[in-house]
Amino acid sequence: MSKLIEYKDMAPRAKAVVEGIAANRGIDPAGINNVWKALARHPPVMEQFAAEMKEAFAPGALDPLTKELVYLAVSIANQCDYCIASHGTMARRKGMTDAMHEEFMKVVLAALKGNKIATAYRVPVDTAFEEA
Amino acid sequence: MSKLIEYKDMAPRAKAVVEGIAANRGIDPAGINNVWKALARHPPVMEQFAAEMKEAFAPGALDPLTKELVYLAVSIANQCDYCIASHGTMARRKGMTDAMHEEFMKVVLAALKGNKIATAYRVPVDTAFEEA
Amino acid sequence: MSKLIEYKDMAPRAKAVVEGIAANRGIDPAGINNVWKALARHPPVMEQFAAEMKEAFAPGALDPLTKELVYLAVSIANQCDYCIASHGTMARRKGMTDAMHEEFMKVVLAALKGNKIATAYRVPVDTAFEEA
Amino acid sequence: MSKLIEYKDMAPRAKAVVEGIAANRGIDPAGINNVWKALARHPPVMEQFAAEMKEAFAPGALDPLTKELVYLAVSIANQCDYCIASHGTMARRKGMTDAMHEEFMKVVLAALKGNKIATAYRVPVDTAFEEA
Amino acid sequence: MSKLIEYKDMAPRAKAVVEGIAANRGIDPAGINNVWKALARHPPVMEQFAAEMKEAFAPGALDPLTKELVYLAVSIANQCDYCIASHGTMARRKGMTDAMHEEFMKVVLAALKGNKIATAYRVPVDTAFEEA
Amino acid sequence: MSKLIEYKDMAPRAKAVVEGIAANRGIDPAGINNVWKALARHPPVMEQFAAEMKEAFAPGALDPLTKELVYLAVSIANQCDYCIASHGTMARRKGMTDAMHEEFMKVVLAALKGNKIATAYRVPVDTAFEEA
Repeated sequence: MSKLIEYKDMAPRAKAVVEGIAANRGIDPAGINNVWKALARHPPVMEQFAAEMKEAFAPGALDPLTKELVYLAVSIANQCDYCIASHGTMARRKGMTDAMHEEFMKVVLAALKGNKIATAYRVPVDTAFEEA
Repeated sequence: MSKLIEYKDMAPRAKAVVEGIAANRGIDPAGINNVWKALARHPPVMEQFAAEMKEAFAPGALDPLTKELVYLAVSIANQCDYCIASHGTMARRKGMTDAMHEEFMKVVLAALKGNKIATAYRVPVDTAFEEA
Repeated sequence: MSKLIEYKDMAPRAKAVVEGIAANRGIDPAGINNVWKALARHPPVMEQFAAEMKEAFAPGALDPLTKELVYLAVSIANQCDYCIASHGTMARRKGMTDAMHEEFMKVVLAALKGNKIATAYRVPVDTAFEEA
Repeated sequence: MSKLIEYKDMAPRAKAVVEGIAANRGIDPAGINNVWKALARHPPVMEQFAAEMKEAFAPGALDPLTKELVYLAVSIANQCDYCIASHGTMARRKGMTDAMHEEFMKVVLAALKGNKIATAYRVPVDTAFEEA
Repeated sequence: MSKLIEYKDMAPRAKAVVEGIAANRGIDPAGINNVWKALARHPPVMEQFAAEMKEAFAPGALDPLTKELVYLAVSIANQCDYCIASHGTMARRKGMTDAMHEEFMKVVLAALKGNKIATAYRVPVDTAFEEA
Repeated sequence: MSKLIEYKDMAPRAKAVVEGIAANRGIDPAGINNVWKALARHPPVMEQFAAEMKEAFAPGALDPLTKELVYLAVSIANQCDYCIASHGTMARRKGMTDAMHEEFMKVVLAALKGNKIATAYRVPVDTAFEEA
């Protein structure tokens, strides 16, 4: 398990990243979640990931909950326990209801089945889909 | 590559599945896509998958485009070429604009990075996320 | 795509591996399948893999078809197109009927779903299973 | 970690699923394993998965142990810890001996190697396998 | 398959990215490889990936060939055919000999086996490794 | 979790494997790491894996640290927690500095992104890479 560094013990470079995230979320930097406490010992990766996350979740054409569901779908497909726990929580905070969660899981499970069916039966791509 | 069976040559059980899908999509059964032409030789799997897909995409709390994006996200994470081609096309038909696609890809790529960072640095789940 | 070397053009070390496999299967070395024609340029990996395959498929407590089904299940889970095509063919040659194939695919798809359900819902292992 | 609901505290819809599984296995519903205690909060996914599992393991052309081995092989390839623990136990209960387990693992590991060799060396599928 | 845009037909923003890469590699921008021709339609993802690649391969504590081997190892584990083909070629251009390739493949295959063994036998992490 | 067998309690066949590894590393057999304590109950798999590891890490054209980094890269891509913990420690013992670790992680993360970009945008392999 990774050594976690609390906000108050971080080097200035890591502190700055956490402050940016905390300001964006409207939380106290001391309450930052573990992935950032683990990354605090790795400033270049930390800064790059924070910038990528900020850009990915910047307001735009897709609403915040849709983005969380996409993130969560990838995390389930990739079997990342930390990400499922954290972004599952985030999705609920951004408005995912129980009904939405059920539907989301059904789509995720149907997709997983579809992925393996296409692979196992070696299905060639339709020419109609090739222009995509 | 799988042997594909055209609609007109399918057994009645497979024809019935294709007709259900075609009616639902408002298309001609003859224009069904390859995954169903490949599954036509495997009626039990075909029927089960068709039922699961129908249920997953039934109208509900999540809008149709969000469901397509979740399906596409899983397919990219799982590297299913057929599914990326087909559901990428479906997503466009259901309203995904270029701007949405760019944002979607950014979230997918950020999620992939987040998944591997949490794994590579062995980050323990926050107790705040454990209640989820 | 890999450069393939025909049996007649292989170096002696690769030829010896192919001859062992061909003798074991009762086929002409010239009719060896592509994975060995590709590995012919990489003798140490080729020899190690041939030895591992021979040992895995040596007569024992599990019958040959069960072993092929296990191999095929792993190949589908791993999405190896070459392996699905080759071991799907092998399984048929070793007695897999259409009915068996349907049941096999149902178990594979149920397993894939079970795997993701256990992960997505973060299910803790039962103490009864921990002794295993 | 998921909140687990004991059988006695489940809603009627979840109770019915557990009773079906328990009857099928000849066990007390109170002794149901964790995956069902976690799914109890998600009845639609629970019912669908229970139906799919029942169908996959229904008596047929493949014997029960072969099906467990196929399930276990997929679970190892997918790295699902819960599934490895639970279906490893199930396989033993259905007759997997130590000798069978050793052979099974050898086939699984040979398959994993074969999958990556075919991928890493970019081996094209033999035309003889394309008819499959 | 993705639509590819040749350098001469790219929009200025994509052209700038390609020129940066070409200058860095000492090649003609017209000879840029396909991944960039495909990304040319997606400037934000293109710019972010180009920046990340440039930073990853910037001169530093690890030599260029080691970095290519790490990249290739990830690509084989992830089964990305394009990446195996392109970075396999890059590794050769940066000095990978046949002997190095053989050793590299042996380590990759041993790692894959070790990964699955640790998972399949559910091995707990040694306390001596936890401080890492 | 696997039952671990201490060196002093191992059967002669497993003891011999551990002694070989311990001699090679210059450590006391009693201090062997958990993967071998778990494999001690499975001598054929244990012997085969020990032989494969020994061969993979035998002195050759690639230096020991490069091999550890390749092993670690595969383990991160495969999300093997045990392997990340153990080979992360091994890499440090073989000379990986913090600066090297940062660069390594950047290459790993860039590779993961490149893998998914090539897949998601369905990039065809350049003919220049096909000869590889």
